[in-house]
Amino acid sequence: MAMKAEFINPFLDSIVNVLETMAGVKVTPGKPQRKLEDAAAGDVTGLIGMASSEIRGSLAITFSSEAIFDVVKRMLGEEVREINSTVTDLVGEITNMVTGGAKRLLEEMGYDFDMAIPAVVAGKNHRISHKSGGPKIIIPFFIDAGKFYVEICFE
Amino acid sequence: MAMKAEFINPFLDSIVNVLETMAGVKVTPGKPQRKLEDAAAGDVTGLIGMASSEIRGSLAITFSSEAIFDVVKRMLGEEVREINSTVTDLVGEITNMVTGGAKRLLEEMGYDFDMAIPAVVAGKNHRISHKSGGPKIIIPFFIDAGKFYVEICFE
Repeated sequence: MAMKAEFINPFLDSIVNVLETMAGVKVTPGKPQRKLEDAAAGDVTGLIGMASSEIRGSLAITFSSEAIFDVVKRMLGEEVREINSTVTDLVGEITNMVTGGAKRLLEEMGYDFDMAIPAVVAGKNHRISHKSGGPKIIIPFFIDAGKFYVEICFE
Repeated sequence: MAMKAEFINPFLDSIVNVLETMAGVKVTPGKPQRKLEDAAAGDVTGLIGMASSEIRGSLAITFSSEAIFDVVKRMLGEEVREINSTVTDLVGEITNMVTGGAKRLLEEMGYDFDMAIPAVVAGKNHRISHKSGGPKIIIPFFIDAGKFYVEICFE
């Protein structure tokens, strides 16, 4: 794997931290893998760009409906049954918090970048592909209600 | 409209320039509008973040299948009938070229930012929403084969 683990771990730690702290849900990370095809499909995705003069990257967090409905219920106490603005707002916030947490950890390691504005995609079974010559790492995460994926790409 | 036209026009000029030059297609921009709801749905979207210590932004270019299939045919000479990697690669490239063109124009005006890695979303009728307190501007564009949208958000 060409991308350094030290670059991936802050994101992995940050997502576990955000969801365990904010949603009180037990998160089990799967094995980070090099993404070779556009395999991961989901129903709602938070996307955010990261950029500086040295670093160019993008992060996507893709949830199935079941997984995000459970997170919404735990974080907001609301029962939702469709991907509405309550859901997309929360996915945007989670994306911001996870990236902000990883940014602070990476800054301590000497990597600096600015964060762009998060965008949230809603649509049954959409697929994300990062367009970069660099490696794309995908990490599956498991919670009781379902699975979600984090995809990270850096140059 | 809180966002300055001088910030929007470089993107508008750049997309017309990229598609007219590279695809030889006549592009007619519609009226830029403040986006108030997640109205624009499409089949494939290129998304890119922009960031510096002063500027935080995101750009989305959303095509219907009909519009992007026509652009692929004109730019690559290929007939495609599904959103495959040929299509998503081209959408990623268009997103990069449009943002790079606008970046150069904005730099001349004293606005500087770095570009993140573009991500491309594929999925029938997906919707994009930018999560920001700042204004979101959406611009419809018309080509013979269909319509596409550009959404820009800056803080």
